[in-house]
Amino acid sequence: MSRQMPPAHPFDDDKLKEECGVYGVIGVTDAANFVALGLHALQHRGQEAGGIVSHDAEQGFNSVRRFGYVRDNFTRHSLMETLPGPLAIGHVRYSTAGSKGAAIRDVQPFFGEFSMGGAAIAHNGNITNANALRKELVERGSIFQSSSDSECIIHLMARSLQRNIPERMEDALRRVEGAFSIVAMTGSELIGVRDPLGVRPLVLGQVADGWVLSSETCALDIIGATYVREIEPGEMVVISEKHGVESHYPFRRVPARFCIFEHVYFSRPDSIIGGRSVYETRHQIGVELAREAPVDADLVCPVPDSGTPAAIGFSHESGIPYAMGIIRNQYMGRTFIEPTEQIRNMGVRLKLNVNRALIKGKRVILVDDSVVRGTTSRKIKEMILDAGAKEVHFRIASPPTAWPCFYGVDTPQREKLLAATMTEDEMRDHLQVDSLKFISLNGLYRAVGEAEGRNSNCPQYCDACFSGEYPVAPSDMIEQGFELKAAE
Amino acid sequence: MSRQMPPAHPFDDDKLKEECGVYGVIGVTDAANFVALGLHALQHRGQEAGGIVSHDAEQGFNSVRRFGYVRDNFTRHSLMETLPGPLAIGHVRYSTAGSKGAAIRDVQPFFGEFSMGGAAIAHNGNITNANALRKELVERGSIFQSSSDSECIIHLMARSLQRNIPERMEDALRRVEGAFSIVAMTGSELIGVRDPLGVRPLVLGQVADGWVLSSETCALDIIGATYVREIEPGEMVVISEKHGVESHYPFRRVPARFCIFEHVYFSRPDSIIGGRSVYETRHQIGVELAREAPVDADLVCPVPDSGTPAAIGFSHESGIPYAMGIIRNQYMGRTFIEPTEQIRNMGVRLKLNVNRALIKGKRVILVDDSVVRGTTSRKIKEMILDAGAKEVHFRIASPPTAWPCFYGVDTPQREKLLAATMTEDEMRDHLQVDSLKFISLNGLYRAVGEAEGRNSNCPQYCDACFSGEYPVAPSDMIEQGFELKAAE
Amino acid sequence: MSRQMPPAHPFDDDKLKEECGVYGVIGVTDAANFVALGLHALQHRGQEAGGIVSHDAEQGFNSVRRFGYVRDNFTRHSLMETLPGPLAIGHVRYSTAGSKGAAIRDVQPFFGEFSMGGAAIAHNGNITNANALRKELVERGSIFQSSSDSECIIHLMARSLQRNIPERMEDALRRVEGAFSIVAMTGSELIGVRDPLGVRPLVLGQVADGWVLSSETCALDIIGATYVREIEPGEMVVISEKHGVESHYPFRRVPARFCIFEHVYFSRPDSIIGGRSVYETRHQIGVELAREAPVDADLVCPVPDSGTPAAIGFSHESGIPYAMGIIRNQYMGRTFIEPTEQIRNMGVRLKLNVNRALIKGKRVILVDDSVVRGTTSRKIKEMILDAGAKEVHFRIASPPTAWPCFYGVDTPQREKLLAATMTEDEMRDHLQVDSLKFISLNGLYRAVGEAEGRNSNCPQYCDACFSGEYPVAPSDMIEQGFELKAAE
Amino acid sequence: MSRQMPPAHPFDDDKLKEECGVYGVIGVTDAANFVALGLHALQHRGQEAGGIVSHDAEQGFNSVRRFGYVRDNFTRHSLMETLPGPLAIGHVRYSTAGSKGAAIRDVQPFFGEFSMGGAAIAHNGNITNANALRKELVERGSIFQSSSDSECIIHLMARSLQRNIPERMEDALRRVEGAFSIVAMTGSELIGVRDPLGVRPLVLGQVADGWVLSSETCALDIIGATYVREIEPGEMVVISEKHGVESHYPFRRVPARFCIFEHVYFSRPDSIIGGRSVYETRHQIGVELAREAPVDADLVCPVPDSGTPAAIGFSHESGIPYAMGIIRNQYMGRTFIEPTEQIRNMGVRLKLNVNRALIKGKRVILVDDSVVRGTTSRKIKEMILDAGAKEVHFRIASPPTAWPCFYGVDTPQREKLLAATMTEDEMRDHLQVDSLKFISLNGLYRAVGEAEGRNSNCPQYCDACFSGEYPVAPSDMIEQGFELKAAE
Repeated sequence: MSRQMPPAHPFDDDKLKEECGVYGVIGVTDAANFVALGLHALQHRGQEAGGIVSHDAEQGFNSVRRFGYVRDNFTRHSLMETLPGPLAIGHVRYSTAGSKGAAIRDVQPFFGEFSMGGAAIAHNGNITNANALRKELVERGSIFQSSSDSECIIHLMARSLQRNIPERMEDALRRVEGAFSIVAMTGSELIGVRDPLGVRPLVLGQVADGWVLSSETCALDIIGATYVREIEPGEMVVISEKHGVESHYPFRRVPARFCIFEHVYFSRPDSIIGGRSVYETRHQIGVELAREAPVDADLVCPVPDSGTPAAIGFSHESGIPYAMGIIRNQYMGRTFIEPTEQIRNMGVRLKLNVNRALIKGKRVILVDDSVVRGTTSRKIKEMILDAGAKEVHFRIASPPTAWPCFYGVDTPQREKLLAATMTEDEMRDHLQVDSLKFISLNGLYRAVGEAEGRNSNCPQYCDACFSGEYPVAPSDMIEQGFELKAAE
Repeated sequence: MSRQMPPAHPFDDDKLKEECGVYGVIGVTDAANFVALGLHALQHRGQEAGGIVSHDAEQGFNSVRRFGYVRDNFTRHSLMETLPGPLAIGHVRYSTAGSKGAAIRDVQPFFGEFSMGGAAIAHNGNITNANALRKELVERGSIFQSSSDSECIIHLMARSLQRNIPERMEDALRRVEGAFSIVAMTGSELIGVRDPLGVRPLVLGQVADGWVLSSETCALDIIGATYVREIEPGEMVVISEKHGVESHYPFRRVPARFCIFEHVYFSRPDSIIGGRSVYETRHQIGVELAREAPVDADLVCPVPDSGTPAAIGFSHESGIPYAMGIIRNQYMGRTFIEPTEQIRNMGVRLKLNVNRALIKGKRVILVDDSVVRGTTSRKIKEMILDAGAKEVHFRIASPPTAWPCFYGVDTPQREKLLAATMTEDEMRDHLQVDSLKFISLNGLYRAVGEAEGRNSNCPQYCDACFSGEYPVAPSDMIEQGFELKAAE
Repeated sequence: MSRQMPPAHPFDDDKLKEECGVYGVIGVTDAANFVALGLHALQHRGQEAGGIVSHDAEQGFNSVRRFGYVRDNFTRHSLMETLPGPLAIGHVRYSTAGSKGAAIRDVQPFFGEFSMGGAAIAHNGNITNANALRKELVERGSIFQSSSDSECIIHLMARSLQRNIPERMEDALRRVEGAFSIVAMTGSELIGVRDPLGVRPLVLGQVADGWVLSSETCALDIIGATYVREIEPGEMVVISEKHGVESHYPFRRVPARFCIFEHVYFSRPDSIIGGRSVYETRHQIGVELAREAPVDADLVCPVPDSGTPAAIGFSHESGIPYAMGIIRNQYMGRTFIEPTEQIRNMGVRLKLNVNRALIKGKRVILVDDSVVRGTTSRKIKEMILDAGAKEVHFRIASPPTAWPCFYGVDTPQREKLLAATMTEDEMRDHLQVDSLKFISLNGLYRAVGEAEGRNSNCPQYCDACFSGEYPVAPSDMIEQGFELKAAE
Repeated sequence: MSRQMPPAHPFDDDKLKEECGVYGVIGVTDAANFVALGLHALQHRGQEAGGIVSHDAEQGFNSVRRFGYVRDNFTRHSLMETLPGPLAIGHVRYSTAGSKGAAIRDVQPFFGEFSMGGAAIAHNGNITNANALRKELVERGSIFQSSSDSECIIHLMARSLQRNIPERMEDALRRVEGAFSIVAMTGSELIGVRDPLGVRPLVLGQVADGWVLSSETCALDIIGATYVREIEPGEMVVISEKHGVESHYPFRRVPARFCIFEHVYFSRPDSIIGGRSVYETRHQIGVELAREAPVDADLVCPVPDSGTPAAIGFSHESGIPYAMGIIRNQYMGRTFIEPTEQIRNMGVRLKLNVNRALIKGKRVILVDDSVVRGTTSRKIKEMILDAGAKEVHFRIASPPTAWPCFYGVDTPQREKLLAATMTEDEMRDHLQVDSLKFISLNGLYRAVGEAEGRNSNCPQYCDACFSGEYPVAPSDMIEQGFELKAAE
């Protein structure tokens, strides 16, 4: 239907983007205020839009969904007062699978009214058989209101014959393929689910007498909640003020495959995943990288801000001094709205500037988290050389990104990925830098704590974006012509 | 869910309100622009919100729904450019049956995607068995997005086994009870339907090579369209660029019962209904009233603006001079947004003022179209006496409004209607005026052209608000405890 | 400097426009609320923008100025709370003399801080030597913030050597030429002034223990204030809670010349000027017109809304039935914002529609208040003929408008005025109507109560727009090349 | 007058704030676009509001002033098109001296129309005799429109008898005391001035055929301009397309006293001041600090982001590993608008979070740039201890801030400054940390390149905030009761 906002972020299009963060709270006064804070701490997982649904005994369900930052929408008294009650869930998103342009209809949480009451649902991930499900549901009389794949779950639930909402959700999720960390709610229950592989994160916390579900631990910290544990792959927790936390296991058990890129880039450095500090993992990636691909130079500089911990690790291991050679304009925000042509062409300069006096005459190692299209890397290299650097060496804290992600991350089409068509050396020549080295897949596995490296028979993580080995077949995409990696 | 706008019109709450106007155009360039103009001409039928859906071969369906006036929303280039194509429908509404607070989700047209394509639908009227239908549909797995009764039609269509959309609509409408004039569209067809009784109006017009459906003829004039004919009660027209206008008759035939209040108040005086000018009918009501209830006085003054034609007729028949004793502030608009307490208490003064110099010392006949709660009548009487009038005589251009309307008009609960609990004389005493007379029901029928008056065996019009005789049982309301008039 | 809003009202450009309305209240709680109501009642005198300044013992002066209607701006609690105190003045304006585009800087009241305290000032009228004064002031070091002629008064006051603000204002006003009804305030006084000729209106009222100054009496009625008297031409009243109303006469005495067009068009029909009801004066103009220019016809129809009282008078005198042949869309508002090309071309149709059934086959007399450019008259004639009228006769309730006004009314340049270049007969042919008659200047004088008609030696009113006799030489305009009427 | 925005930044109130950044461009097409980019790069010097004035041969001066970020206002096509021409100046501000609440009237650049044409002026700094000047000007008839001290300059210029604007500005500036880096423009000239002491920075750059004036060099980089030189203390440059850059020296010569805090905190690390990289100076401060105040610990962590370069320097000199123990939420923006009470109380947590896994059990050195009130330091200490740190040692990259700045920096009243009432040891106890050390004043001078440290007879910098020695007497403040440091 109508498009209400132009596609945003013209300057940031050279990174993979997490599509969503989810959050839920039960058992506290004005739960929606806590959800707003949690979503603010998860803003890095989705900047385009956010939504909160709350439930109050008197007023029932209330919902607000808005484009823009959490801090700009969900902080006004007048707005937050419309979201009363002790139970609330929320969602931030980057963009959804199906939509070409953004519409508020597509902003989660989604809400459905069933004969036994209402339910709201928000999810992080992607349903890989959404098209097929949608087609089937429409043929049987469901009316879709959004272009989002997540709406399928609501319609599947509406058609379930189970008598209560959690059981209807189990029914629905057994029909769904893909990666999904779900936070949902009824009028009295907060529900959390991770898909059988546990691709996307979801943690449980406790605050006062209440419970919290969050994509990451950093969003527990912001409200002073205590970390309890991760929701297990394939687990569904149903939390009520009456019965506390109850665990269900609706799916057949399979070996877990957590997304390794959460460690590399998506998660915030102050979050803890699987008992490991994300910051320390990234620091360790830098250490591994310095061992795998040493180079003689004067300075180690991060590409801000995501390359910073790996650069510190690289400096530590190599003994080459760490310095801030590139400065980030902290007032960049999501993007310049509707930039003039002139501004659009400035590209990276608006966001980054070189510390000219520092760089001049130096041999510089630049540590970045990943190379996607390579467009930003190229501009950064030019800025560094313009400032008088003698040599530029790129060290990348992840293996070459050669395959798109179909599990809730916004990746360009395969042919746009630099590593899909070039070897490491070709990329070095393409970027015209003195050297370019990516960490090896085994090196990355070591950095996340797998001392033996990757188990190629049964990989410990989902690393499809590097390896092309997809743990769940992306069936909608295959239908549309996507070609899987040929068996070797 | 969340309430986005406070209930409006604190000063206008003493009139019955038409809930909707509908409009559709096919076969012209940028049909949405025509629809915007048509809706502007129908704005008196609904001031709270408006929506337009258009269809374009390339872009498919586009939709914009907004609170506020047509002129403030649907005139911006940037907005209208998002509604391209040769086919569009639109809707203005006052408020919908089910909602306590206003939400954009409830603004029509509604849109549904079926396996054979999309359809949008807008309706004027009310579905009297909506609650029952909704309950049944939810139990069978439909997800409602709005609190509007009209959404039932979309879900009934989604579940029909018919192969094309017009036939699905026929299926759906056969399940529906109440009053409904519908304008709908598929990707290639403009559809118009009137319920079997033809309670609400709908006319067909022609503009250039295209066709127009409209609630009233005044909205044909604004785009220079020619009036062709009324859609018949129980008729469905399906209009395509390929096949022109095709008529269907999905319902069992019953005698028509057009809403007589459209003549009295709802329709614009420059519209033509059933071949009669609304202005002339109202003028004639004034003539009948002067005959039925003459009184000796110095001036005949209308309560602006709706009492004007009847006042002119009364003056003409009685020979008493016509004068503008009450002046309306033309900058009143829909309402003061969020008025301060002080302003709220001013009530009628904001909108109306007395022409003091004219009124002083005079015996004044005030002609108004109707008395609902009587609150405004009372304030007007006080203003007139404050200005020094010697006598105040009310003459009302409709019979006493003693029963609520369930067919698409916003009426207070029965106990709030002055005429539900008082006789004409009691009302006169309550209002403390020198005399108060309503036109008789037979007099009203004569004024609309029924020389013999009302046929009490088979009334020619729906006059339930006066007579309590409901041509379609208001089944949802009866379920909720509404008591029909005892059989005599 | 920057232009913030496009020039508005593309559809209304064939009327003279009053430029301003002024209002002030002292001695009541939250005076600004009263001012908001008063400005709402004066909205017909200026729809482009409005401003209010209030004074409170604790907070000092506060000011809000906004584009748009009073009802849309000055009714929000949050806004009105920023305007506390027992003393406030306000202003609505159409547009100011000097500005090409609208800027909020140009919206009155203007405020100046002097060594003895602050003062705010709002005025209705025009300063005819503003350019000369401005030039002189800038040369002596004054910094102008607006393009408005009224700002001169503040700067003249700043340079006065008098010790208190009212005396500084007297000093300043003695330097000023033109027409000006001023409402001003200090921290403790409400001040009202009319220029020596008394061209623009200003009345005094009383509400509870407080006092009111207003352009018109209709704005006393809205707050329930009692009319006390008109401020006299050349009088300055200084009203304080302590000393009540004190009169000063700063100017040399000259015979009064009130604007006769206030009677014809500008003032609201429910206002009283010089003891006469504006409505009755206009009714009497219709009577005079029927006597001066009778014609055989079937219907007398007003061009709504301003032609209505004269049409009623014409009908009364002639015996030809009065009818509403043209219907005005009451949702027109100030204008369609940014109308699409298609809508722009619809012109008059958006605002007016013909009552086709009524007009068909009839000989119609159309009564309008004035003819300026003639563009609207022409479109109306076409609409009437399209609807099937047999004859169209125009009767105009004012003499031919042949000269621009330089005293606070927005008139086109002289060459754009139809009557500046054509005789009555030429205009009739130009408009292609069956007959066209204007009331005579003497007829108009009789209608306003001058039984002997106009005293050509010493005219009782300012009628420069009809006669070309300007009571104050428009010196800035003469400087710019405007040619006065040659002496006869 | 009226307040249009609540005071902002409740979470950032424990830093000194630079009040302004200035920028100007001449000799390029659409100069305002360049100014917008430059102001974006100077956003750290003022986040509350921004303004741009441009001049175009045809349209004259145009101006836009807005609250909020540059990127949110000055990037829309429709807005930037209203600022045409080859000459433009701009300003970002934090807040101005005189105003309690923010009003758009107070946003620079200010504009004045003189008899020889218009001029716009923007300034960074503070006029210390503004009150006295204002009083004198008002008594002589000037009308002030803002509460800003900068408006004095315009009025002084208006009263000058000089024949051209640059000479009028010289006249005006000779009356003015304080710190001021000015960027101004006439219709054909770009003007830059630094006060005789050169307290605030101002640099000259070149872009294509045009010239640029900027507060810092980082804002030259963003548009690809070449750095030419600093404007000298006491110099006025007048730049025209015709005559290029012309230097004037309107003031008596005095030894320069550049603000040393620009090195410590205000300027961006990628700027170059006096030939020195700000980043390297800060790094060197860390080195000096490690020498002056060593401590045995496990980690050196910066308080982000301003403490980062000094922390790196400290780590480098001490050999203790550098780590990011505190993570900053990059979506913080200027502030949460209108935060709910709950959110307001979260304070620092919204912006900063501790890297718990890293900190646990460690002895941590925290490097911050300054301590003002000490409120933030205290909260950070608590966060670090909550996360399980064994010891917390604060090292501060500036001497104790014991005196307010009156030269364009927003400082709390003296009694609110922690160092005004406590010794270093008392502060340590107050903050309850294991140790707290500030760099010495001599250490700071060494770090900025003065090998001999501070020359106490004739200090090389303005260091009044540390030393209490004010190079220009703050006369308005003394008038209001401020007590200078007693002579020793």
